[in-house]
Order: sequence, then C-alpha cells, then structure tokens
Amino acid sequence: MTVERATRHFQEELEGLQARLLEMGGLAEERVRMAVHGLVTRDTTLIDTVMLGDELINELHIEIDGRCFTLLALHQPMATDLRSIVAAVKINTDLERVGDLAVNIAEAARRYTNHAPVKKLIDIPQMGDIAQAMLRDALDSFVRRDTGLAHQVLNEDDRLDALKTQVFRELLTYMLDDPSTVEPALDLILVSRHLERIGDHATNIAEDVIFMVSALDVRHHSSNVDEG
Amino acid sequence: MTVERATRHFQEELEGLQARLLEMGGLAEERVRMAVHGLVTRDTTLIDTVMLGDELINELHIEIDGRCFTLLALHQPMATDLRSIVAAVKINTDLERVGDLAVNIAEAARRYTNHAPVKKLIDIPQMGDIAQAMLRDALDSFVRRDTGLAHQVLNEDDRLDALKTQVFRELLTYMLDDPSTVEPALDLILVSRHLERIGDHATNIAEDVIFMVSALDVRHHSSNVDEG
Repeated sequence: MTVERATRHFQEELEGLQARLLEMGGLAEERVRMAVHGLVTRDTTLIDTVMLGDELINELHIEIDGRCFTLLALHQPMATDLRSIVAAVKINTDLERVGDLAVNIAEAARRYTNHAPVKKLIDIPQMGDIAQAMLRDALDSFVRRDTGLAHQVLNEDDRLDALKTQVFRELLTYMLDDPSTVEPALDLILVSRHLERIGDHATNIAEDVIFMVSALDVRHHSSNVDEG
Repeated sequence: MTVERATRHFQEELEGLQARLLEMGGLAEERVRMAVHGLVTRDTTLIDTVMLGDELINELHIEIDGRCFTLLALHQPMATDLRSIVAAVKINTDLERVGDLAVNIAEAARRYTNHAPVKKLIDIPQMGDIAQAMLRDALDSFVRRDTGLAHQVLNEDDRLDALKTQVFRELLTYMLDDPSTVEPALDLILVSRHLERIGDHATNIAEDVIFMVSALDVRHHSSNVDEG
C-alpha cells in the first residue's frame, strides 16, 4: 500500500468512526426524548420501550471502542489524528452513559405514573430540550472541530443548572405542604438531576473538543516532537 | 537509542503513569472519606476543606492525560501496552469524576449541618467504606492486571445498591411522617446516590481492566495483526 493510499484509507476509517459516533449520539438523544415524552404524556408503553431497549447503544459502544483501537493499532496516528481518536474514546463513554441516564429517567417516569401528577411538566421537558440540543451541538462541534460551538455548549449548561434549581425549589414547596406528593416529587427531582447529568456529558464532550483543537494550536507553535 | 533501551524507557514511563493514577486514586478516595466523615461529625471545617480543594485532582487529571498522549505519540505502542494506555485515559476520567462527587457530597453535607440530624448515620458511612474499598480494589486490579479482583469489585456494587435502596426507604418514612425532615432527608438521599455513583466509577474501572486483560487473551489465540 502506498503512503497516499494508507492515508486515504485512514481518513475513510476516521470518517466512518465519526459517522458511527453521530449515529450513537442520535440514538441516545432520541431515547432521552422518548423517556421525557413518556413522562409528560404518562405513556407507559413508551416508557417501557426506553427501559427495555438499551442493547443497540451498548452494541455501538463496543463497536466504536473497537474501531478506535484498530485505528490506533494499525495506523499509529500522530498529533491531530491521535487526539481525535482519543477524544472519540472519551465521547463514546459519555454517550453510553447518556443512554444509561435515559433508562434512569424512564424508571423514575414509570414510578411517577403510579401517583397523581404533582405539577404541570413544563420546565422538565424544557430541560430535556436543552440537554438534547447540547448533545447535538457537542457532537457537531467534534465533527466540525468547531470550538466556538463547543463554547456555546458550555454556556448552555448554566441554563440547565438554573432550571434544575428552580424545579427543585418548586417541588420542595409541594413536599412540605402535602406529604402525598413526597414520592412523586422525589421522582421528578431525580429526572431533573438525570437531565442535568446529560448536560454534564455534553459539557465533557465540548471540553474534549476544545482540548483536541486548542492542544493542536499550542503544539503547532512549538517544535514539539509530537507533530505528525 | 537501541530497541532494548527504548523498550525499557517505555516501561518506565508506563510505571510512572500507573504510579500517578494510584496517587490520584488515593487522593480521590481520601476526599470521599473526608466528606463523609465531615457529614457524620458535622465538622464544617472539614467539609469546607473538601469543597474548596479540588485543584490537586484537576492538575493530576491534566498531567495524566498528557502522559497518556505522550506515550501514545512517542512510542506508538501495540496490543497490551496500547490497551493499558487507553484504559488509563478512561480511568483518569473516572477518578476526576470521583473527585467531583466528593465535592457534591461535601455540598450536601454543608446544607445538612443547617438542620437537626434526621437519623443516626450508620449505613451512609458504611456505603462510603464500600465505595472507597471498591475504588482501591479497582485500581489495584488495574496495576496487577488481576481480573479476579476486578470481578470482586463488580460484585461489591450490588451491596452498595442494596444499601442505597435501604437508606432511601428509611428516609422516605421520615419525610412522610414529618415535613421538617424533608430538606435534610433529601440531602442524605443525594449523598447516598453520590456514593452509589462512586461505586459505578469503580465498576467502570473494573470493567476496563477485564476488557484490557481478556481482549489480550482473545487476540492472543487469533492471528490478529494487532499483536505487538
């Protein structure tokens, strides 16, 4: 294989890896959407679908990990490419945890449907929308190497935290006033914390992107042996 | 540099990396211990120490990540060594999150000291002990490539989950009986969840160790090009 062919082959593999990460991100995002929608509409069938269907994400997780290892072992990439693949390993882990959190949301939603609704669910779906958008933007920033977009993701995290605090305060009032709301309110608090953690995973991804791109800049201006 | 000298140099670097990971693990474990002890003894000075002193772990996190990159870039390791370094990247992330969780425990403990104690804290320190032991064993299993010990860590996680459920049920009873316990009981529920998540991170590390060692076996019996 000529050097050009090897390079082209590597770039194709790298693009394949990115495509699979985007696919996994889309799947994780969709499952978060379903879990929150199931909670809001009290749709136990939808909730059960999320609770039972985690295999596809877990399979993708293993496949993507394998792709990263193969790329590292066979192509021994340097500099930018190396950092992209190590970032992919980390992002893959974050996306798998997001899949787990969708299941956690579904579990809390399932319990919630056993009680009368505590309150109108407006802020929690809003948190869900923000968390999903953060995930999407974080993955886009990875593929496009766009640190501007990655920084936007970091800013969005503050909005999510503020909503979580607001939800918590409101639910605490209900719990203090009426003990019959304690159990369902606890589940809503858990859901809002799961959504906040999804935002944290999007934040991790955005931070990896910033490191991946800015480390490149830093090393670009020095005579580091690491340059490929 | 001769091949032998390069190999020896690489092994020294790898041992240095492991030593730093153990140091970071010890630090994370110590901070969890301090946070739980601060909660039990209502020692606000100790709690504040944990809340304010996360820098050392964050510095180690960056340093270890850098060591992993250097090892990957300069030595282009194959097979076992490659898997060890990718595992180190993941373990480093897990340990940093454990450090964050120690801060979260301290924050809940700080709020808890503003209320009268809800209950005797016996099961929560027990959860803390289990989580710390799991962390320690997971890191030992990494350094010793001991999948038996790694499997023990996975089993311990069930004990932690059972205690979390028990703590939750007990606290729910208090909250339903007496609204004045709602706020402090919520903080204890959060602490028990943070401890459960520390157990999850130890579990992640143990799973990485099992993959690292067993993937070696699998590939050892095939004619995979990946063998170094």
